[in-house]
Amino acid sequence: MASFQKIGVFDSGLGGLTVLNAICAQNRGLSIVYFGDTARVPYGSRTPETIERYAEQDVRFLLSKGVEAIIVACGTVSAIALPKLHQSFDLPIIGVIEPACAAAVSVTKTKHICVIGTQATVNSNAYSSCLNRIAPDCRVSGIACPLFVPLIENGFREDDPITQLTVERYLAQIRNTDIDTLILGCTHYPFFTNAIRAELPGIHLIDIGVALSQAIKQMMPKSGETRENDVEYCFSDKETSFQRFDTNHLKSLPKGEIHVINIERF
Amino acid sequence: MASFQKIGVFDSGLGGLTVLNAICAQNRGLSIVYFGDTARVPYGSRTPETIERYAEQDVRFLLSKGVEAIIVACGTVSAIALPKLHQSFDLPIIGVIEPACAAAVSVTKTKHICVIGTQATVNSNAYSSCLNRIAPDCRVSGIACPLFVPLIENGFREDDPITQLTVERYLAQIRNTDIDTLILGCTHYPFFTNAIRAELPGIHLIDIGVALSQAIKQMMPKSGETRENDVEYCFSDKETSFQRFDTNHLKSLPKGEIHVINIERF
Repeated sequence: MASFQKIGVFDSGLGGLTVLNAICAQNRGLSIVYFGDTARVPYGSRTPETIERYAEQDVRFLLSKGVEAIIVACGTVSAIALPKLHQSFDLPIIGVIEPACAAAVSVTKTKHICVIGTQATVNSNAYSSCLNRIAPDCRVSGIACPLFVPLIENGFREDDPITQLTVERYLAQIRNTDIDTLILGCTHYPFFTNAIRAELPGIHLIDIGVALSQAIKQMMPKSGETRENDVEYCFSDKETSFQRFDTNHLKSLPKGEIHVINIERF
Repeated sequence: MASFQKIGVFDSGLGGLTVLNAICAQNRGLSIVYFGDTARVPYGSRTPETIERYAEQDVRFLLSKGVEAIIVACGTVSAIALPKLHQSFDLPIIGVIEPACAAAVSVTKTKHICVIGTQATVNSNAYSSCLNRIAPDCRVSGIACPLFVPLIENGFREDDPITQLTVERYLAQIRNTDIDTLILGCTHYPFFTNAIRAELPGIHLIDIGVALSQAIKQMMPKSGETRENDVEYCFSDKETSFQRFDTNHLKSLPKGEIHVINIERF
Protein backbone atom coordinates (compact mmCIF):
# COMPACT_ATOMS: atom_id res chain seq x y z
CA MET A 1 0.00 0.00 0.00
CA ALA A 2 2.90 2.32 0.80
CA SER A 3 3.90 2.38 -2.85
CA PHE A 4 0.59 3.92 -3.90
CA GLN A 5 0.84 7.67 -4.31
CA LYS A 6 -2.88 8.24 -4.46
CA ILE A 7 -5.87 6.17 -3.35
CA GLY A 8 -9.59 6.54 -4.01
CA VAL A 9 -12.29 6.01 -1.39
CA PHE A 10 -15.96 5.90 -2.34
CA ASP A 11 -19.42 5.44 -0.87
CA SER A 12 -23.01 5.87 -1.97
CA GLY A 13 -23.07 9.07 0.08
CA LEU A 14 -21.67 10.45 3.29
CA GLY A 15 -21.50 7.27 5.40
CA GLY A 16 -18.09 6.48 3.94
CA LEU A 17 -16.74 9.54 5.69
CA THR A 18 -16.68 7.43 8.87
CA VAL A 19 -14.36 5.01 7.04
CA LEU A 20 -12.26 7.87 5.71
CA ASN A 21 -12.08 9.26 9.24
CA ALA A 22 -10.82 5.92 10.55
CA ILE A 23 -8.26 5.66 7.71
CA CYS A 24 -6.99 9.19 8.41
CA ALA A 25 -6.81 8.54 12.16
CA GLN A 26 -4.62 5.48 11.57
CA ASN A 27 -2.38 6.64 8.73
CA ARG A 28 -0.22 9.62 7.70
CA GLY A 29 0.95 10.99 4.37
CA LEU A 30 -1.85 9.57 2.25
CA SER A 31 -3.18 11.38 -0.79
CA ILE A 32 -6.88 10.51 -1.10
CA VAL A 33 -9.77 11.30 -3.43
CA TYR A 34 -13.13 10.71 -1.70
CA PHE A 35 -16.24 10.26 -3.84
CA GLY A 36 -19.77 10.28 -2.37
CA ASP A 37 -22.60 9.56 -4.82
CA THR A 38 -25.01 11.97 -3.13
CA ALA A 39 -27.09 12.37 -6.31
CA ARG A 40 -28.06 8.68 -6.20
CA VAL A 41 -27.86 7.73 -2.52
CA PRO A 42 -29.09 5.36 -1.07
CA TYR A 43 -27.80 2.24 -2.85
CA GLY A 44 -29.06 -0.27 -0.27
CA SER A 45 -32.62 -0.47 -1.55
CA ARG A 46 -31.69 -0.94 -5.21
CA THR A 47 -31.20 -4.16 -7.18
CA PRO A 48 -27.76 -5.83 -7.51
CA GLU A 49 -27.66 -4.92 -11.25
CA THR A 50 -28.10 -1.22 -10.51
CA ILE A 51 -25.64 -1.27 -7.59
CA GLU A 52 -23.01 -2.90 -9.83
CA ARG A 53 -23.57 -0.35 -12.59
CA TYR A 54 -23.29 2.55 -10.15
CA ALA A 55 -20.17 1.07 -8.52
CA GLU A 56 -18.46 0.70 -11.92
CA GLN A 57 -19.17 4.36 -12.70
CA ASP A 58 -17.79 5.35 -9.28
CA VAL A 59 -14.56 3.42 -9.95
CA ARG A 60 -14.22 4.91 -13.47
CA PHE A 61 -14.52 8.39 -11.97
CA LEU A 62 -11.78 7.66 -9.41
CA LEU A 63 -9.56 6.20 -12.14
CA SER A 64 -9.94 9.48 -14.03
CA LYS A 65 -8.44 11.18 -10.96
CA GLY A 66 -5.33 9.00 -11.23
CA VAL A 67 -5.81 6.80 -8.16
CA GLU A 68 -3.78 3.59 -7.95
CA ALA A 69 -5.89 1.67 -5.44
CA ILE A 70 -9.49 1.90 -4.33
CA ILE A 71 -11.18 1.47 -0.95
CA VAL A 72 -14.88 0.62 -1.14
CA ALA A 73 -16.11 2.50 1.93
CA CYS A 74 -19.69 1.35 1.41
CA GLY A 75 -21.13 -1.75 3.05
CA THR A 76 -23.66 -2.29 0.28
CA VAL A 77 -21.19 -2.01 -2.62
CA SER A 78 -18.67 -4.20 -0.76
CA ALA A 79 -21.34 -6.87 -0.28
CA ILE A 80 -22.87 -6.78 -3.78
CA ALA A 81 -20.42 -5.48 -6.36
CA LEU A 82 -16.88 -6.39 -5.32
CA PRO A 83 -16.57 -9.54 -7.51
CA LYS A 84 -17.83 -7.56 -10.51
CA LEU A 85 -15.38 -4.71 -9.81
CA HIS A 86 -12.45 -7.12 -9.51
CA GLN A 87 -13.49 -8.59 -12.85
CA SER A 88 -13.83 -5.22 -14.60
CA PHE A 89 -10.81 -3.32 -13.29
CA ASP A 90 -7.13 -4.09 -12.99
CA LEU A 91 -6.11 -2.28 -9.79
CA PRO A 92 -6.36 -3.20 -6.10
CA ILE A 93 -9.94 -2.71 -4.88
CA ILE A 94 -10.46 -3.37 -1.19
CA GLY A 95 -13.87 -3.75 0.46
CA VAL A 96 -15.02 -3.83 4.06
CA ILE A 97 -16.29 -7.42 4.26
CA GLU A 98 -13.06 -9.32 4.88
CA PRO A 99 -11.55 -6.99 7.49
CA ALA A 100 -14.91 -6.83 9.30
CA CYS A 101 -15.26 -10.61 9.34
CA ALA A 102 -11.68 -11.08 10.53
CA ALA A 103 -12.28 -8.59 13.35
CA ALA A 104 -15.52 -10.34 14.35
CA VAL A 105 -13.90 -13.78 14.39
CA SER A 106 -11.10 -12.47 16.60
CA VAL A 107 -13.51 -11.42 19.38
CA THR A 108 -16.48 -13.82 19.28
CA LYS A 109 -16.55 -16.49 22.00
CA THR A 110 -20.00 -17.97 21.28
CA LYS A 111 -19.15 -18.24 17.54
CA HIS A 112 -22.51 -16.67 16.72
CA ILE A 113 -22.16 -13.37 14.85
CA CYS A 114 -24.88 -11.05 13.59
CA VAL A 115 -24.59 -8.61 10.68
CA ILE A 116 -26.87 -5.59 10.40
CA GLY A 117 -27.01 -3.69 7.13
CA THR A 118 -29.15 -2.51 4.25
CA GLN A 119 -31.67 -4.88 2.65
CA ALA A 120 -29.30 -5.45 -0.28
CA THR A 121 -26.37 -6.26 2.04
CA VAL A 122 -28.37 -8.77 4.08
CA ASN A 123 -29.85 -10.36 0.93
CA SER A 124 -26.36 -10.76 -0.56
CA ASN A 125 -25.09 -13.20 2.09
CA ALA A 126 -21.63 -11.70 1.50
CA TYR A 127 -20.71 -11.76 5.20
CA SER A 128 -21.85 -15.34 5.73
CA SER A 129 -19.92 -16.48 2.63
CA CYS A 130 -16.78 -14.80 3.92
CA LEU A 131 -17.23 -16.07 7.49
CA ASN A 132 -17.91 -19.59 6.25
CA ARG A 133 -14.58 -19.41 4.44
CA ILE A 134 -12.39 -17.96 7.19
CA ALA A 135 -14.16 -19.48 10.23
CA PRO A 136 -16.43 -22.37 9.29
CA ASP A 137 -17.29 -22.97 12.94
CA CYS A 138 -19.08 -19.59 13.19
CA ARG A 139 -22.81 -19.15 12.69
CA VAL A 140 -24.08 -15.94 11.06
CA SER A 141 -27.42 -14.15 11.32
CA GLY A 142 -28.46 -11.05 9.37
CA ILE A 143 -30.94 -8.26 10.05
CA ALA A 144 -31.83 -5.54 7.54
CA CYS A 145 -32.21 -2.09 9.17
CA PRO A 146 -33.38 0.04 6.22
CA LEU A 147 -34.57 2.98 8.31
CA PHE A 148 -31.18 3.66 9.97
CA VAL A 149 -29.67 5.49 6.97
CA PRO A 150 -32.66 7.83 6.43
CA LEU A 151 -32.71 8.59 10.16
CA ILE A 152 -29.01 9.47 10.17
CA GLU A 153 -29.15 11.39 6.87
CA ASN A 154 -32.07 13.43 8.21
CA GLY A 155 -30.29 14.42 11.40
CA PHE A 156 -32.02 12.14 13.92
CA ARG A 157 -29.52 11.75 16.78
CA GLU A 158 -29.06 8.48 18.61
CA ASP A 159 -30.73 9.77 21.78
CA ASP A 160 -33.90 10.70 19.89
CA PRO A 161 -36.91 8.59 21.00
CA ILE A 162 -37.74 7.80 17.34
CA THR A 163 -34.19 6.49 16.82
CA GLN A 164 -34.33 4.50 20.05
CA LEU A 165 -37.69 2.92 19.16
CA THR A 166 -36.34 1.98 15.73
CA VAL A 167 -33.13 0.49 17.16
CA GLU A 168 -35.21 -1.48 19.66
CA ARG A 169 -37.52 -2.74 16.87
CA TYR A 170 -34.74 -3.99 14.61
CA LEU A 171 -32.50 -5.45 17.31
CA ALA A 172 -35.07 -6.96 19.70
CA GLN A 173 -34.67 -10.38 18.08
CA ILE A 174 -30.98 -10.49 19.13
CA ARG A 175 -31.77 -10.28 22.84
CA ASN A 176 -31.93 -13.68 24.53
CA THR A 177 -29.82 -15.33 21.82
CA ASP A 178 -26.18 -16.44 22.05
CA ILE A 179 -25.05 -13.74 19.58
CA ASP A 180 -22.09 -11.94 21.19
CA THR A 181 -20.73 -9.95 18.21
CA LEU A 182 -22.53 -7.50 15.95
CA ILE A 183 -21.01 -6.28 12.67
CA LEU A 184 -22.24 -2.78 11.80
CA GLY A 185 -22.41 -3.64 8.10
CA CYS A 186 -23.12 -0.13 6.86
CA THR A 187 -20.77 2.82 7.13
CA HIS A 188 -23.54 5.04 8.51
CA TYR A 189 -24.21 2.90 11.55
CA PRO A 190 -21.33 4.07 13.79
CA PHE A 191 -23.44 7.20 14.33
CA PHE A 192 -25.82 4.96 16.32
CA THR A 193 -23.15 3.12 18.35
CA ASN A 194 -24.40 4.30 21.73
CA ALA A 195 -28.06 3.58 20.96
CA ILE A 196 -27.14 0.07 19.81
CA ARG A 197 -24.95 -0.51 22.85
CA ALA A 198 -27.81 0.58 25.12
CA GLU A 199 -30.11 -1.96 23.46
CA LEU A 200 -27.53 -4.78 23.53
CA PRO A 201 -25.23 -4.17 26.52
CA GLY A 202 -22.04 -6.23 26.52
CA ILE A 203 -22.14 -7.16 22.85
CA HIS A 204 -18.97 -6.70 20.74
CA LEU A 205 -19.57 -4.07 18.05
CA ILE A 206 -17.49 -4.23 14.86
CA ASP A 207 -17.11 -0.86 13.11
CA ILE A 208 -16.28 -1.78 9.51
CA GLY A 209 -14.36 1.46 8.97
CA VAL A 210 -12.09 0.84 11.93
CA ALA A 211 -11.58 -2.80 10.88
CA LEU A 212 -10.72 -1.73 7.33
CA SER A 213 -8.30 1.00 8.38
CA GLN A 214 -6.46 -1.40 10.69
CA ALA A 215 -6.14 -3.85 7.79
CA ILE A 216 -4.74 -1.06 5.61
CA LYS A 217 -2.28 -0.02 8.31
CA GLN A 218 -1.01 -3.59 8.61
CA MET A 219 -0.46 -3.68 4.86
CA MET A 220 1.76 -0.59 5.00
CA PRO A 221 5.39 -0.80 6.09
CA LYS A 222 6.30 1.60 8.88
CA SER A 223 7.58 4.62 6.97
CA GLY A 224 8.00 7.32 9.60
CA GLU A 225 5.75 9.46 7.39
CA THR A 226 4.57 12.54 9.23
CA ARG A 227 2.98 14.55 6.39
CA GLU A 228 -0.71 15.36 6.92
CA ASN A 229 -3.18 13.34 4.87
CA ASP A 230 -4.36 15.26 1.83
CA VAL A 231 -8.02 14.71 0.83
CA GLU A 232 -10.04 15.96 -2.14
CA TYR A 233 -13.81 15.58 -1.59
CA CYS A 234 -16.01 14.93 -4.65
CA PHE A 235 -19.77 14.51 -4.71
CA SER A 236 -22.33 13.93 -7.47
CA ASP A 237 -24.73 16.47 -5.97
CA LYS A 238 -23.88 19.73 -4.27
CA GLU A 239 -23.22 18.59 -0.75
CA THR A 240 -24.55 20.83 1.97
CA SER A 241 -25.35 18.36 4.68
CA PHE A 242 -22.00 17.75 6.41
CA GLN A 243 -23.33 19.84 9.26
CA ARG A 244 -26.34 17.54 9.70
CA PHE A 245 -23.96 14.90 11.00
CA ASP A 246 -22.65 14.47 14.47
CA THR A 247 -19.11 15.57 13.67
CA ASN A 248 -17.74 13.93 16.81
CA HIS A 249 -17.50 10.87 14.55
CA LEU A 250 -15.47 12.73 11.93
CA LYS A 251 -12.76 14.45 13.98
CA SER A 252 -9.79 13.12 11.98
CA LEU A 253 -10.99 14.37 8.58
CA PRO A 254 -8.63 16.98 7.15
CA LYS A 255 -10.07 19.98 5.34
CA GLY A 256 -9.86 19.77 1.56
CA GLU A 257 -11.26 21.04 -1.71
CA ILE A 258 -14.87 20.07 -2.49
CA HIS A 259 -15.98 19.40 -6.06
CA VAL A 260 -19.28 18.45 -7.68
CA ILE A 261 -19.18 16.10 -10.67
CA ASN A 262 -21.75 14.47 -12.97
CA ILE A 263 -21.30 10.76 -12.27
CA GLU A 264 -23.56 9.74 -15.18
CA ARG A 265 -20.78 10.76 -17.59
CA PHE A 266 -18.51 7.98 -16.32
CA MET B 1 -57.11 16.69 -22.85
CA ALA B 2 -59.56 14.49 -24.69
CA SER B 3 -57.67 14.98 -27.91
CA PHE B 4 -54.53 13.39 -26.48
CA GLN B 5 -54.19 9.74 -27.45
CA LYS B 6 -51.44 9.01 -24.96
CA ILE B 7 -50.27 10.72 -21.78
CA GLY B 8 -47.20 10.25 -19.63
CA VAL B 9 -47.21 10.26 -15.83
CA PHE B 10 -43.98 10.29 -13.85
CA ASP B 11 -42.65 10.37 -10.32
CA SER B 12 -39.33 9.89 -8.55
CA GLY B 13 -40.56 6.45 -7.54
CA LEU B 14 -43.75 4.71 -6.51
CA GLY B 15 -45.55 7.60 -4.77
CA GLY B 16 -46.93 8.77 -8.10
CA LEU B 17 -48.95 5.57 -8.27
CA THR B 18 -51.38 7.24 -5.84
CA VAL B 19 -51.85 10.01 -8.43
CA LEU B 20 -52.18 7.47 -11.23
CA ASN B 21 -54.75 5.64 -9.11
CA ALA B 22 -56.77 8.83 -8.68
CA ILE B 23 -56.53 9.61 -12.42
CA CYS B 24 -57.69 6.10 -13.32
CA ALA B 25 -60.54 6.23 -10.79
CA GLN B 26 -61.85 9.46 -12.34
CA ASN B 27 -61.31 8.82 -16.06
CA ARG B 28 -61.90 6.13 -18.70
CA GLY B 29 -60.28 5.31 -22.01
CA LEU B 30 -56.87 6.84 -21.25
CA SER B 31 -53.66 5.38 -22.64
CA ILE B 32 -50.92 6.07 -20.10
CA VAL B 33 -47.19 5.45 -19.73
CA TYR B 34 -46.12 5.60 -16.08
CA PHE B 35 -42.46 6.17 -15.25
CA GLY B 36 -41.05 5.75 -11.74
CA ASP B 37 -37.36 6.63 -11.29
CA THR B 38 -36.74 3.89 -8.75
CA ALA B 39 -32.99 3.83 -9.50
CA ARG B 40 -32.59 7.40 -8.23
CA VAL B 41 -35.43 7.85 -5.71
CA PRO B 42 -35.74 9.92 -3.53
CA TYR B 43 -35.57 13.32 -5.26
CA GLY B 44 -36.68 15.39 -2.25
CA SER B 45 -33.29 15.56 -0.53
CA ARG B 46 -31.33 16.56 -3.67
CA THR B 47 -30.46 20.04 -4.93
CA PRO B 48 -32.72 21.92 -7.40
CA GLU B 49 -30.08 21.55 -10.16
CA THR B 50 -30.07 17.76 -9.82
CA ILE B 51 -33.88 17.55 -9.57
CA GLU B 52 -34.21 19.61 -12.78
CA ARG B 53 -31.70 17.44 -14.61
CA TYR B 54 -33.47 14.24 -13.53
CA ALA B 55 -36.91 15.67 -14.45
CA GLU B 56 -35.69 16.59 -17.95
CA GLN B 57 -34.43 13.03 -18.45
CA ASP B 58 -37.77 11.67 -17.25
CA VAL B 59 -39.65 13.85 -19.75
CA ARG B 60 -37.31 12.87 -22.60
CA PHE B 61 -37.96 9.20 -21.83
CA LEU B 62 -41.75 9.73 -21.92
CA LEU B 63 -41.44 11.67 -25.19
CA SER B 64 -39.63 8.66 -26.66
CA LYS B 65 -42.78 6.65 -25.87
CA GLY B 66 -44.88 9.02 -27.97
CA VAL B 67 -46.85 10.75 -25.22
CA GLU B 68 -48.59 14.02 -26.10
CA ALA B 69 -49.02 15.46 -22.61
CA ILE B 70 -47.30 14.87 -19.28
CA ILE B 71 -48.57 14.76 -15.72
CA VAL B 72 -45.90 15.41 -13.08
CA ALA B 73 -47.11 13.07 -10.34
CA CYS B 74 -44.31 14.10 -8.00
CA GLY B 75 -44.67 16.86 -5.44
CA THR B 76 -40.95 17.62 -5.45
CA VAL B 77 -40.58 17.87 -9.25
CA SER B 78 -43.80 19.93 -9.47
CA ALA B 79 -42.43 22.35 -6.88
CA ILE B 80 -38.86 22.65 -8.22
CA ALA B 81 -38.65 21.84 -11.90
CA LEU B 82 -41.94 22.80 -13.60
CA PRO B 83 -40.75 26.22 -14.90
CA LYS B 84 -37.62 24.60 -16.34
CA LEU B 85 -39.65 21.82 -17.98
CA HIS B 86 -42.06 24.32 -19.56
CA GLN B 87 -39.03 26.18 -20.89
CA SER B 88 -37.34 23.06 -22.31
CA PHE B 89 -40.28 21.17 -23.82
CA ASP B 90 -43.11 22.10 -26.14
CA LEU B 91 -45.99 19.94 -24.92
CA PRO B 92 -48.51 20.33 -22.08
CA ILE B 93 -46.86 19.49 -18.74
CA ILE B 94 -49.17 19.62 -15.74
CA GLY B 95 -48.02 19.58 -12.12
CA VAL B 96 -49.77 19.11 -8.83
CA ILE B 97 -49.24 22.57 -7.29
CA GLU B 98 -52.04 24.56 -8.93
CA PRO B 99 -54.82 21.99 -8.53
CA ALA B 100 -53.77 21.38 -4.91
CA CYS B 101 -53.76 25.09 -4.10
CA ALA B 102 -57.14 25.59 -5.78
CA ALA B 103 -58.58 22.71 -3.76
CA ALA B 104 -57.14 24.12 -0.53
CA VAL B 105 -58.49 27.61 -1.20
CA SER B 106 -61.96 26.17 -1.84
CA VAL B 107 -62.19 24.61 1.64
CA THR B 108 -60.20 26.84 4.03
CA LYS B 109 -62.25 29.10 6.28
CA THR B 110 -59.43 30.48 8.46
CA LYS B 111 -57.35 31.30 5.32
CA HIS B 112 -54.34 29.67 6.95
CA ILE B 113 -53.05 26.69 4.97
CA CYS B 114 -50.11 24.41 5.74
CA VAL B 115 -48.09 22.43 3.20
CA ILE B 116 -46.12 19.35 4.22
CA GLY B 117 -43.57 17.89 1.83
CA THR B 118 -39.97 17.01 1.23
CA GLN B 119 -37.20 19.42 2.24
CA ALA B 120 -36.80 20.51 -1.39
CA THR B 121 -40.54 21.16 -1.77
CA VAL B 122 -40.74 23.25 1.39
CA ASN B 123 -37.56 25.18 0.50
CA SER B 124 -38.95 25.97 -2.97
CA ASN B 125 -41.88 28.10 -1.73
CA ALA B 126 -43.78 26.87 -4.81
CA TYR B 127 -47.06 26.49 -2.89
CA SER B 128 -46.86 29.90 -1.25
CA SER B 129 -46.06 31.55 -4.60
CA CYS B 130 -49.08 29.89 -6.19
CA LEU B 131 -51.38 30.63 -3.24
CA ASN B 132 -50.23 34.25 -3.14
CA ARG B 133 -51.27 34.50 -6.78
CA ILE B 134 -54.68 32.80 -6.65
CA ALA B 135 -55.70 33.79 -3.10
CA PRO B 136 -53.60 36.65 -1.73
CA ASP B 137 -55.66 36.70 1.48
CA CYS B 138 -54.39 33.23 2.47
CA ARG B 139 -51.40 32.66 4.72
CA VAL B 140 -49.15 29.63 4.09
CA SER B 141 -46.91 27.65 6.42
CA GLY B 142 -44.60 24.80 5.39
CA ILE B 143 -43.19 21.81 7.26
CA ALA B 144 -40.61 19.40 5.82
CA CYS B 145 -41.30 15.76 6.74
CA PRO B 146 -38.27 13.97 5.26
CA LEU B 147 -38.75 10.71 7.15
CA PHE B 148 -42.27 10.02 5.79
CA VAL B 149 -41.08 8.70 2.40
CA PRO B 150 -38.48 6.28 3.85
CA LEU B 151 -41.06 5.03 6.35
CA ILE B 152 -43.61 4.36 3.59
CA GLU B 153 -41.05 2.90 1.18
CA ASN B 154 -39.85 0.55 3.91
CA GLY B 155 -43.31 -0.76 4.70
CA PHE B 156 -44.02 1.04 7.96
CA ARG B 157 -47.82 1.20 8.18
CA GLU B 158 -49.63 4.20 9.55
CA ASP B 159 -50.68 2.41 12.73
CA ASP B 160 -47.05 1.57 13.59
CA PRO B 161 -45.86 3.32 16.79
CA ILE B 162 -42.72 4.55 14.97
CA THR B 163 -44.90 6.13 12.26
CA GLN B 164 -47.21 7.65 14.84
CA LEU B 165 -44.34 9.13 16.85
CA THR B 166 -42.88 10.62 13.65
CA VAL B 167 -46.23 12.07 12.53
CA GLU B 168 -46.68 13.56 16.00
CA ARG B 169 -43.16 15.06 15.91
CA TYR B 170 -43.54 16.76 12.54
CA LEU B 171 -47.13 17.96 12.98
CA ALA B 172 -47.14 18.98 16.67
CA GLN B 173 -46.46 22.61 15.74
CA ILE B 174 -49.77 22.78 13.82
CA ARG B 175 -51.88 22.01 16.92
CA ASN B 176 -53.17 25.15 18.64
CA THR B 177 -52.81 27.26 15.49
CA ASP B 178 -55.58 28.53 13.20
CA ILE B 179 -54.44 26.26 10.33
CA ASP B 180 -57.55 24.40 9.09
CA THR B 181 -56.25 22.93 5.81
CA LEU B 182 -53.23 20.72 5.20
CA ILE B 183 -51.88 20.04 1.70
CA LEU B 184 -50.19 16.63 1.50
CA GLY B 185 -47.48 17.96 -0.79
CA CYS B 186 -45.89 14.63 -1.63
CA THR B 187 -47.57 11.81 -3.50
CA HIS B 188 -46.50 9.27 -0.87
CA TYR B 189 -48.31 10.95 1.99
CA PRO B 190 -51.86 9.63 1.30
CA PHE B 191 -50.59 6.35 2.76
CA PHE B 192 -50.48 8.18 6.14
CA THR B 193 -53.90 9.86 5.87
CA ASN B 194 -55.36 8.17 8.94
CA ALA B 195 -52.30 8.79 11.11
CA ILE B 196 -52.33 12.47 10.14
CA ARG B 197 -56.06 12.73 10.74
CA ALA B 198 -55.63 11.19 14.20
CA GLU B 199 -52.97 13.80 15.05
CA LEU B 200 -54.99 16.72 13.63
CA PRO B 201 -58.69 15.84 13.95
CA GLY B 202 -61.05 18.04 11.96
CA ILE B 203 -58.40 19.46 9.61
CA HIS B 204 -59.09 19.46 5.84
CA LEU B 205 -56.59 17.21 4.07
CA ILE B 206 -55.78 17.92 0.41
CA ASP B 207 -54.60 14.83 -1.51
CA ILE B 208 -52.66 16.29 -4.44
CA GLY B 209 -53.41 13.25 -6.63
CA VAL B 210 -57.16 13.60 -6.14
CA ALA B 211 -56.99 17.37 -6.72
CA LEU B 212 -55.00 16.84 -9.92
CA SER B 213 -57.27 14.12 -11.30
CA GLN B 214 -60.34 16.28 -10.70
CA ALA B 215 -58.64 19.11 -12.60
CA ILE B 216 -57.88 16.74 -15.47
CA LYS B 217 -61.46 15.48 -15.51
CA GLN B 218 -62.79 19.03 -15.73
CA MET B 219 -60.49 19.68 -18.69
CA MET B 220 -61.93 16.71 -20.60
CA PRO B 221 -65.27 16.97 -22.42
CA LYS B 222 -67.75 14.23 -21.47
CA SER B 223 -67.12 11.60 -24.11
CA GLY B 224 -69.12 8.61 -22.98
CA GLU B 225 -65.83 6.66 -23.18
CA THR B 226 -66.16 3.30 -21.47
CA ARG B 227 -62.91 1.61 -22.53
CA GLU B 228 -60.68 0.54 -19.64
CA ASN B 229 -57.61 2.67 -19.02
CA ASP B 230 -54.49 1.14 -20.52
CA VAL B 231 -51.27 1.59 -18.51
CA GLU B 232 -47.66 0.65 -19.29
CA TYR B 233 -45.44 0.74 -16.17
CA CYS B 234 -41.78 1.68 -16.61
CA PHE B 235 -39.12 1.88 -13.91
CA SER B 236 -35.42 2.69 -13.89
CA ASP B 237 -34.67 -0.16 -11.49
CA LYS B 238 -36.27 -3.58 -11.36
CA GLU B 239 -39.29 -2.87 -9.23
CA THR B 240 -40.19 -5.54 -6.73
CA SER B 241 -41.70 -3.50 -3.96
CA PHE B 242 -45.30 -2.95 -5.09
CA GLN B 243 -46.28 -5.46 -2.46
CA ARG B 244 -44.66 -3.43 0.31
CA PHE B 245 -47.39 -0.84 -0.16
CA ASP B 246 -50.82 -0.82 1.36
CA THR B 247 -52.65 -1.60 -1.89
CA ASN B 248 -55.94 -0.32 -0.49
CA HIS B 249 -54.70 3.01 -1.80
CA LEU B 250 -54.11 1.65 -5.31
CA LYS B 251 -57.37 -0.19 -6.08
CA SER B 252 -58.08 1.57 -9.39
CA LEU B 253 -54.76 0.73 -11.03
CA PRO B 254 -55.21 -1.53 -14.06
CA LYS B 255 -52.74 -4.33 -14.66
CA GLY B 256 -50.21 -3.59 -17.36
CA GLU B 257 -46.84 -4.50 -18.79
CA ILE B 258 -43.81 -3.65 -16.63
CA HIS B 259 -40.52 -2.56 -18.21
CA VAL B 260 -37.13 -1.61 -16.81
CA ILE B 261 -35.20 1.15 -18.63
CA ASN B 262 -31.86 2.93 -18.17
CA ILE B 263 -32.87 6.54 -17.51
CA GLU B 264 -29.27 7.79 -17.75
CA ARG B 265 -29.44 7.27 -21.52
CA PHE B 266 -32.11 10.00 -21.93
